[in-house]
Amino acid sequence: MADTQLTQYFVAASMDGFIATENDDLSWLLQFEGVDEAQDANPYDAFISDVGALAMGATTYEWILAHDDGPWAYGDRPTWVFTHRQLPSVEGAVLRFTQDDVATVHGRMLAESSGRNVWVVGGGELAGQFLDAGLLDEIWLTVTPVTLGQGAPLLPRRHTTPMTLVSALPAPNGTFVHLRYRLR
Amino acid sequence: MADTQLTQYFVAASMDGFIATENDDLSWLLQFEGVDEAQDANPYDAFISDVGALAMGATTYEWILAHDDGPWAYGDRPTWVFTHRQLPSVEGAVLRFTQDDVATVHGRMLAESSGRNVWVVGGGELAGQFLDAGLLDEIWLTVTPVTLGQGAPLLPRRHTTPMTLVSALPAPNGTFVHLRYRLR
Repeated sequence: MADTQLTQYFVAASMDGFIATENDDLSWLLQFEGVDEAQDANPYDAFISDVGALAMGATTYEWILAHDDGPWAYGDRPTWVFTHRQLPSVEGAVLRFTQDDVATVHGRMLAESSGRNVWVVGGGELAGQFLDAGLLDEIWLTVTPVTLGQGAPLLPRRHTTPMTLVSALPAPNGTFVHLRYRLR
Repeated sequence: MADTQLTQYFVAASMDGFIATENDDLSWLLQFEGVDEAQDANPYDAFISDVGALAMGATTYEWILAHDDGPWAYGDRPTWVFTHRQLPSVEGAVLRFTQDDVATVHGRMLAESSGRNVWVVGGGELAGQFLDAGLLDEIWLTVTPVTLGQGAPLLPRRHTTPMTLVSALPAPNGTFVHLRYRLR
């Protein structure tokens, strides 16, 4: 099974490559909430059903804590949070706070994901560390029809070896386009 | 005719929103030269045939001077170069060096473009000035399957009013995707 497990950075960004404003504001993205899903154009449901483990940075985790009102959205999938700080837990979540490097953690993730894929949730710096270690198989990028001008970068790395565009699925309502790239 | 004239920012960027490196290097983009065109997937030919006038900043103009070996690529279309410096001319080009603001120049461009469209070639700051003035009708963005991490920004503005995605055309060889957005 291990050969078919993919490590995927699934993320939404402004068309100029930011995943949040400098204040971690996502209202530019959340203004579209429900619009895309209603048309069955969003690949998230199909994507998440193949995910067995998650990785995220402390900022991403804290954003979820502060903004997600409902139950933990990722079920019993083990979730590694890369942090050097003490962070609160979430009821119902299977959390692994870690200070280890991504290569070490990635081995554990593959072993504990029931043969399914690994989702690098973000942020960009954590995704960059997976890229640096040669561990990133795919990027799923939802391009949002706005610009931010500055903020948290999508992937703060120079990677000019061409990735392969696997698919480009525009939402029928003229909002998002969902791009899927293969890196190796 | 004036009502049907569009002002369009047609540009290629890395998937993280840069149009050049910090040293104005385009080798990350030029590595694809010929690959896309050979498959008739690139919209440039159809786009340029509807263009009657061009606008570009001094850096873009100087890049063309330094790198384009052949004849001036834009025929007899009048081309406004926004600059505060003295710059050399190019044989065969119809050039208008200007220090005026974009709104003033835009009026002249519409009048001298034979009823055809206005192309804002770049860079990002000049496109931003057209956006600020409410003059930009469309963005044609070719997303390149690489990341740069830093460099010259695509559009250094915060514009969170949703644009409308008109089309998303992937190149069949898994390289570019050509996105067309309407702003108004």
